[in-house]
Amino acid sequence: MKGTVLYGPRDVRFEHRPDPTITKPTDAILRLSATCICGSDLWPYRGIGNFTEPPAPMGHEYCGIVEEVGKEVRNVKPGQFVVGSFATSDNTCVICKDGYQSSCVQREFMSAAQAPLLRVPLADGTLVPTREIPPKELIPSLLATSDVLGTGWFAADAANVKPGKTAVVVGDGAVGLLAVLSAKHMGAERIIAMSRHESRQKLAREFGATDIVTERGEEGVARVKELTKGIGADSVLECVGTQESMLQAIRSTRPGGYVSYVGVPHGVALEGGDLFFAEVHLHGGPAPVRRYLPELIDLVLTEKINPGKVFDLTLPLDQVAEGYRAMDERRAIKTLLSTDGAK
Amino acid sequence: MKGTVLYGPRDVRFEHRPDPTITKPTDAILRLSATCICGSDLWPYRGIGNFTEPPAPMGHEYCGIVEEVGKEVRNVKPGQFVVGSFATSDNTCVICKDGYQSSCVQREFMSAAQAPLLRVPLADGTLVPTREIPPKELIPSLLATSDVLGTGWFAADAANVKPGKTAVVVGDGAVGLLAVLSAKHMGAERIIAMSRHESRQKLAREFGATDIVTERGEEGVARVKELTKGIGADSVLECVGTQESMLQAIRSTRPGGYVSYVGVPHGVALEGGDLFFAEVHLHGGPAPVRRYLPELIDLVLTEKINPGKVFDLTLPLDQVAEGYRAMDERRAIKTLLSTDGAK
Repeated sequence: MKGTVLYGPRDVRFEHRPDPTITKPTDAILRLSATCICGSDLWPYRGIGNFTEPPAPMGHEYCGIVEEVGKEVRNVKPGQFVVGSFATSDNTCVICKDGYQSSCVQREFMSAAQAPLLRVPLADGTLVPTREIPPKELIPSLLATSDVLGTGWFAADAANVKPGKTAVVVGDGAVGLLAVLSAKHMGAERIIAMSRHESRQKLAREFGATDIVTERGEEGVARVKELTKGIGADSVLECVGTQESMLQAIRSTRPGGYVSYVGVPHGVALEGGDLFFAEVHLHGGPAPVRRYLPELIDLVLTEKINPGKVFDLTLPLDQVAEGYRAMDERRAIKTLLSTDGAK
Repeated sequence: MKGTVLYGPRDVRFEHRPDPTITKPTDAILRLSATCICGSDLWPYRGIGNFTEPPAPMGHEYCGIVEEVGKEVRNVKPGQFVVGSFATSDNTCVICKDGYQSSCVQREFMSAAQAPLLRVPLADGTLVPTREIPPKELIPSLLATSDVLGTGWFAADAANVKPGKTAVVVGDGAVGLLAVLSAKHMGAERIIAMSRHESRQKLAREFGATDIVTERGEEGVARVKELTKGIGADSVLECVGTQESMLQAIRSTRPGGYVSYVGVPHGVALEGGDLFFAEVHLHGGPAPVRRYLPELIDLVLTEKINPGKVFDLTLPLDQVAEGYRAMDERRAIKTLLSTDGAK
């Protein structure tokens, strides 16, 4: 097959790779119905951070049809449509049982999903099958549950979004926009989206944002305070991962309020005294998407939510490099890669 | 009167000061039944941090008899015994109503309480009166509710201590020891106290610790992991405020677990990536003691708890300088200052 490999900053290649095979009896091989590019893929694409050693097979968002399973796989079988998380999990350890499958004792972070075929370790714990093969038009939204929606959902959950409360979303990338959708679904009365891009503001409003704040940094904090009687918001969802966005999030939150952070932090250092006197709750990390998958898949299949709208660019998989460029240059919010005809 | 003033590192003087007077109609003047020295007083005493400009009137833990109240004070009256928090609060703003009185919009941090007389701003919101004048032998425990117990209680509450769970307490100062008592009261099944001092270990066990860990840093983390099936504790209560203790706390916690921090951090900077992949809940700040005071006072008056045991040294107020020395040199856990006969 051909798959996506990052060789260095802005050097994405779609090239021949070995077909994945069952290497452990708990593995499954999927033929992907679609895949996509994550905001977090842009960090190594831009040469920031050291999470990926090049040449690196890229991609960790996926859904598709099970082709083959290892001997010990019991919960999924060939022919089923499945969605999995970007983090594998056995779903049986105490951490998984507590709902933190993204920190499972056996966790691996997925890669190599920007390809037609994918090996998924710990298939029984990682993958969630649907009862029927879903209609094609729901594939983008089902794909979204695999990471970008699950991560936005965790942002809202970890920030304790509740009916009647005010939520602020910092970041207007795909995760931030789906954090708006999630906050809306969880009943937030007021949802303030921090965005200065018209097309993203529009989608934020469509997903449930009631206010848009275009200012950033201290000005952004001041604007949120103005909108919240000088007190700050109940819940602030940090969906970027920079020092500026983290501080903006913490300073926009009322004492006793909740800050979540779901983007891998880059260059973030939080000063103890600042945190102490802010007196907020702070929770985040790699989203435990597996915890939410059954509910999210159901919400998509019953068409109660349409998170697939964040894909504003669809390209054939072999044009993956253009997909990265479009997101890097912010011409696209998120690129869906079609696997139709890919080999 | 004579009161306690810090002139510089290790330069505590007990000297003539003007008697406090009502300066705002919401003030009260108390004649203190006892006062004490806080672990946090040792930071400026040691010349660390910049929270106090010398010469600084010291002390913020207090209980006593109301002498006089301002015109607008309604809830307390002369002759009543009262306890107040180290942070004043109106107890009516939205932040107070949410239980975060220590971040009240009108908050002031108390000072000048190591003296026989004390002015308390926002008396109605800050002070909690008892129905009767309590017996003298309960004064140490009532004084403890004002800060050190309230802070340990917040540590346990903010770390989500629940029946059946495992809690670790980092720090064997008075706050840490009362965090053990608090965790016990909240039903923790296993309470691991990190301590290498025999007298403190003994008190920790008396307050409910089931295990003592003497190792620190990475060795301390490894020991806690050993005691928790390799996973880490459900709740970790950080009661010191240094970089080492914060990292030890975070690394001792299971993913999805809870870390509280209640000591003013000094030289603490948390790296975003470390926090992210630890995937813990983090909450702390100046303890909202006022939220807990009615319950804590009741527990003391009904003799269900005896937090006054942390006072292992009692001195007359005019020997306050020796009280600081004893705590600085760790000869005493916590010094109670008797106001009997003080003028």
